[in-house]
Amino acid sequence: MGNSFGKLFKITTFGESHGVALGVTLEGCPAGLEIDEAKIRLEMQRRKPGQSKITTQRKEEDEIEILSGVFEGKSTGTPIGIVIRNADQKSKDYSHISDKFRPSHADYTYFEKYGIRDYRGGGRSSARETAARVAAGAIAKQLLDHYGVTVQAFVSQVGNLKLEKPYQELNLGLAEENIVRCPDPELADQMIQLIDEVRLDRDTIGGVVTCVIKNTPVGIGEPVFDRLHAELGKAMLGINAVKGFEYGSGFDGVTMRGSQHNDAFIKEGDKVKTKTNFSGGIQGGISNGEDIYFRVAFKPVATIMKDQESINEAGESITVSGKGRHDPCVVPRAVPIVEAMAALVIADNIILAKSNKL
Amino acid sequence: MGNSFGKLFKITTFGESHGVALGVTLEGCPAGLEIDEAKIRLEMQRRKPGQSKITTQRKEEDEIEILSGVFEGKSTGTPIGIVIRNADQKSKDYSHISDKFRPSHADYTYFEKYGIRDYRGGGRSSARETAARVAAGAIAKQLLDHYGVTVQAFVSQVGNLKLEKPYQELNLGLAEENIVRCPDPELADQMIQLIDEVRLDRDTIGGVVTCVIKNTPVGIGEPVFDRLHAELGKAMLGINAVKGFEYGSGFDGVTMRGSQHNDAFIKEGDKVKTKTNFSGGIQGGISNGEDIYFRVAFKPVATIMKDQESINEAGESITVSGKGRHDPCVVPRAVPIVEAMAALVIADNIILAKSNKL
Amino acid sequence: MGNSFGKLFKITTFGESHGVALGVTLEGCPAGLEIDEAKIRLEMQRRKPGQSKITTQRKEEDEIEILSGVFEGKSTGTPIGIVIRNADQKSKDYSHISDKFRPSHADYTYFEKYGIRDYRGGGRSSARETAARVAAGAIAKQLLDHYGVTVQAFVSQVGNLKLEKPYQELNLGLAEENIVRCPDPELADQMIQLIDEVRLDRDTIGGVVTCVIKNTPVGIGEPVFDRLHAELGKAMLGINAVKGFEYGSGFDGVTMRGSQHNDAFIKEGDKVKTKTNFSGGIQGGISNGEDIYFRVAFKPVATIMKDQESINEAGESITVSGKGRHDPCVVPRAVPIVEAMAALVIADNIILAKSNKL
Amino acid sequence: MGNSFGKLFKITTFGESHGVALGVTLEGCPAGLEIDEAKIRLEMQRRKPGQSKITTQRKEEDEIEILSGVFEGKSTGTPIGIVIRNADQKSKDYSHISDKFRPSHADYTYFEKYGIRDYRGGGRSSARETAARVAAGAIAKQLLDHYGVTVQAFVSQVGNLKLEKPYQELNLGLAEENIVRCPDPELADQMIQLIDEVRLDRDTIGGVVTCVIKNTPVGIGEPVFDRLHAELGKAMLGINAVKGFEYGSGFDGVTMRGSQHNDAFIKEGDKVKTKTNFSGGIQGGISNGEDIYFRVAFKPVATIMKDQESINEAGESITVSGKGRHDPCVVPRAVPIVEAMAALVIADNIILAKSNKL
Repeated sequence: MGNSFGKLFKITTFGESHGVALGVTLEGCPAGLEIDEAKIRLEMQRRKPGQSKITTQRKEEDEIEILSGVFEGKSTGTPIGIVIRNADQKSKDYSHISDKFRPSHADYTYFEKYGIRDYRGGGRSSARETAARVAAGAIAKQLLDHYGVTVQAFVSQVGNLKLEKPYQELNLGLAEENIVRCPDPELADQMIQLIDEVRLDRDTIGGVVTCVIKNTPVGIGEPVFDRLHAELGKAMLGINAVKGFEYGSGFDGVTMRGSQHNDAFIKEGDKVKTKTNFSGGIQGGISNGEDIYFRVAFKPVATIMKDQESINEAGESITVSGKGRHDPCVVPRAVPIVEAMAALVIADNIILAKSNKL
Repeated sequence: MGNSFGKLFKITTFGESHGVALGVTLEGCPAGLEIDEAKIRLEMQRRKPGQSKITTQRKEEDEIEILSGVFEGKSTGTPIGIVIRNADQKSKDYSHISDKFRPSHADYTYFEKYGIRDYRGGGRSSARETAARVAAGAIAKQLLDHYGVTVQAFVSQVGNLKLEKPYQELNLGLAEENIVRCPDPELADQMIQLIDEVRLDRDTIGGVVTCVIKNTPVGIGEPVFDRLHAELGKAMLGINAVKGFEYGSGFDGVTMRGSQHNDAFIKEGDKVKTKTNFSGGIQGGISNGEDIYFRVAFKPVATIMKDQESINEAGESITVSGKGRHDPCVVPRAVPIVEAMAALVIADNIILAKSNKL
Repeated sequence: MGNSFGKLFKITTFGESHGVALGVTLEGCPAGLEIDEAKIRLEMQRRKPGQSKITTQRKEEDEIEILSGVFEGKSTGTPIGIVIRNADQKSKDYSHISDKFRPSHADYTYFEKYGIRDYRGGGRSSARETAARVAAGAIAKQLLDHYGVTVQAFVSQVGNLKLEKPYQELNLGLAEENIVRCPDPELADQMIQLIDEVRLDRDTIGGVVTCVIKNTPVGIGEPVFDRLHAELGKAMLGINAVKGFEYGSGFDGVTMRGSQHNDAFIKEGDKVKTKTNFSGGIQGGISNGEDIYFRVAFKPVATIMKDQESINEAGESITVSGKGRHDPCVVPRAVPIVEAMAALVIADNIILAKSNKL
Repeated sequence: MGNSFGKLFKITTFGESHGVALGVTLEGCPAGLEIDEAKIRLEMQRRKPGQSKITTQRKEEDEIEILSGVFEGKSTGTPIGIVIRNADQKSKDYSHISDKFRPSHADYTYFEKYGIRDYRGGGRSSARETAARVAAGAIAKQLLDHYGVTVQAFVSQVGNLKLEKPYQELNLGLAEENIVRCPDPELADQMIQLIDEVRLDRDTIGGVVTCVIKNTPVGIGEPVFDRLHAELGKAMLGINAVKGFEYGSGFDGVTMRGSQHNDAFIKEGDKVKTKTNFSGGIQGGISNGEDIYFRVAFKPVATIMKDQESINEAGESITVSGKGRHDPCVVPRAVPIVEAMAALVIADNIILAKSNKL
């Protein structure tokens, strides 16, 4: 359990960080969609390690290979199988960590759960697994293009550096212009500097990714347990290092009165709109056509370059030494992952909604 | 879709606010569990309307009837069917709202999704549906009792009145001693007064519920998409009026450094513990045996007693008048709902974990 | 697990033969379907016990109550909850069988599986549970009406009395004209006589139900594991006492040559047809628009009125005495159950197929 | 939908006959199982084309590559990803069949369903897809080894040549000694001769595979819809060319009386046994510890070497010419496929049953 996401437009992933390959099977892509491999590669580039000085310096090309489900450039309705080989899985010596539990990693919990673990890197718990999601998400994005829906994420906070302007006042197109992926160029520079300081200090720092989805058709989302925002929340909380999710007015909304918070319906031309959008584009779990927007909190990643006290499988006190090449802050590389998961949720719910009426 | 929650220990609900009855089918309850109906009734009492001056004055007894799956006081392993009749579903005159879209309700989105809606109250989108979840959750709690796990929620914020103390410094047993369900008696009084003011002002206000789960076995939770906190998050975001979810360090954790945030492993007797618990009891999506704790943000409910501008199905401007008896603040009654959903998630994951090893 | 059937148009049942009530939740019924309760009651009548001299003489009215999901005579898109109370569940004395394992019943297997069982009647394994399916199936039939699809089953064999004519040469409308539900009046008389003899001999006998589905849209059914006939087969094998399923040419087809068995495509007007239909209307798991037909084998039911040797929970040899009122042959009452399950499968697959194309 | 099979021990396959590769993701394999790749390769050998004169002469090595989920020779609890490259997918000229509907193939139905199809070979509907199932099934068999369960299938009928002896009187070990996989050497010779004649006649013929499962633990299988035999039936009906499934007494059982058919319980040492086994090892959908046995009917495959009349996408009459290398009778190669699917069902249900009791 736990390796699949989605109901009809559904992905199942496999693969460990230091295994032979990662892979994803995407089921339920409607037939006849033009699949542009270049667009998938572009998303892989946005996620891959080593893309800038503030990300891990590990080099991995994350080359995708489509094995099925696409014929003459179009989806056939059958599952799309994709593999991404791990470039760099030589048999290194892992004996120095093979029985150690790294603090705030999944070493201990996986070991207790399964009684065995792939101790080379994080195994299945590694964020490397998200490469498979980004590949599938890139196809979801192409499906959303077909329906006119856009999904855009950006970095809105690193440590205490917080983008205070509402997203409507920002030129989101600027987010991809800098390596931290913040649409405010000035703040972006400060964020980059902060991450660089943290990196030099051999430490890590957290951040927030904001995501905006435009032009979602009205009536998307299922009632009760599978509300659209509950699916988005689950999708985000399933990304490594995420500690929180809020949409629309979010945690700030709790201080408001209903009379302020309610979004009045108005008619604009032949469209039903709302004057404000504290609802975040979702009412009763179902899209109302306004922008869907949400924020995702990422903790500082657990892999730091400092020595840390811990224990090993035998319960003995040991020291975990920081080694290797890791991200001082994950949010820049998390942006395409957030987009991928959001695109998968919206695509799935658009397809599900086809069954609502006779 | 969207009416079921859980994988093996799984509920499916039906029912509208003004229909004949609500119901829930609970599958996957292991056989041989003693089912105490009195404990289910107690939870229903905690959720029911009309229980205090700060909740809606609607009177509904929420009497449960167990139809199957329990024999001679014990679960038999077959599905437990429960119905809760709607006491008060006389054919009132709803013509004044039957074609109106109430602001920030699900009227418009359901109408667009299905082309039809039960306009008496919120229909399926009404929080009344959560009565069915509380009934099933009360059985989940009895299963957790068997495994020694406790789930306790309480109100930690109403409007700007925020409980700042960490939960470890509180006597959580005091939460049920006051009608707002806040374990700090002094703050509870202030919250009650605030809600009363809001009510007199014919308005509503938001709040936060915090939940603490103790003694979860180590190794519970699935990897990747179904991480334990992702399931908890989805469960909470599936409750009416919820706008945000955070666990462990949450949104505040984004400002921390990895070296502060990492929870060092230590050995206490024969138990593995962590010095701090910013992880919130979950690492890599899997429980590590520490307390699981999380916060859930509730917006001010949409039903206010003031007149509001809106439109109707024909797209004409109309006025929605506030009528009826509604909650000025949902968080006191949300406490047992949060507990119910949390208990369902933990119970499901305990059962799922039986399949991890040979 | 095991209490739900279907993917989007999906039922979940609960209830034991001697519990308070049976119930079913039908999810995924598209909104706006006119639901005629009289048609549901008609199907319940066709299945209910005591309807003729060749069925069990138990009297149960199988009155349905719709609790949700239908408003002003139409489906609303939300789950339809239905309960059927067990008329006759007084606390009889079951001590004479409470620890005995009746031969070829599920007493022993349920006891071993769950360590506990509801020993009054068959509990959850009783065919009484199928009443819930027939109620939901009656709604599926109304959905199929909307799409022009008809489902008709009939008895084609009782013991060695076998209807040899192909269904195309029969007037299927005659099936409901006699109590054994065989469309050949002469053979029907013989079947009724045979069942009566078996009944007087305090024994039971098996039979076969054939089902014909007309006007299924082309392109219904999922590839690989969920082929349309695999879903139909699973649906039939999930009915009590079923031992076999075959569709199209079935077991007889194994003796044929490919050159005989292949169904040549032809064009009739603007319709693609096949000259023969050994495929049974399904090719590669997907409907081709021809009639879908299949046969379902029912064993002689295990409850006989004779004494039988067996063992009890303690492993001691005991005698099971035949008591009560039971069916000497289940196939007449199985006809509406076969139709209900077939209707559910086709309805589900029609809805699923909406997602195939952009 | 339709590409996954199983609930906890679950496979998802992808791949077309003439695409880049086939693949399977196996989830839910408990951690710590020794995985012997040689045993997987052996099963692949049993299924592969070109293994004898009575199978297709196509040559394909069906080399598997395990990409994840196995570490140091053991399962880790994470999904096991396997790919099988298609050796022989050069860009041949398919223009002669690209718009033709071959009789009794899935060409027409896939085209109508998806509006597009991979016309090279059968695409996703090709039996080549079963290679992925056999790979996963080989792991299921290793899990069953761990629990002491054995699964053995054999050919029991080709055309009219039918093995009349009950399986208990046969030495099943002889099945693999001949190329048709029939445990009766004399009948095997006749079958081989018949298939050879059919092949020379450029035609095909059907057959039956029987499967026997020994030592299944008591209490395996879910009630109601997911009865163990319903899952087995669905698994078998999901194999290409299957037209029927029966277990235990099957279709012959319909002629019996209950008093003959009931299997009396007896105690043998400390084991509960039944005197006869018409139930086929399953009562009420749950295993009783006796042998599970069933029969699967395979039609003559549709690909024949003769010219056939048909139509094309434009609805014009055309001739389909038989070309290529195909199986004159599928049952010899179907034997390992039947075993694989049966092993997957039993493995899944053993794991599911862990959750029945507290």
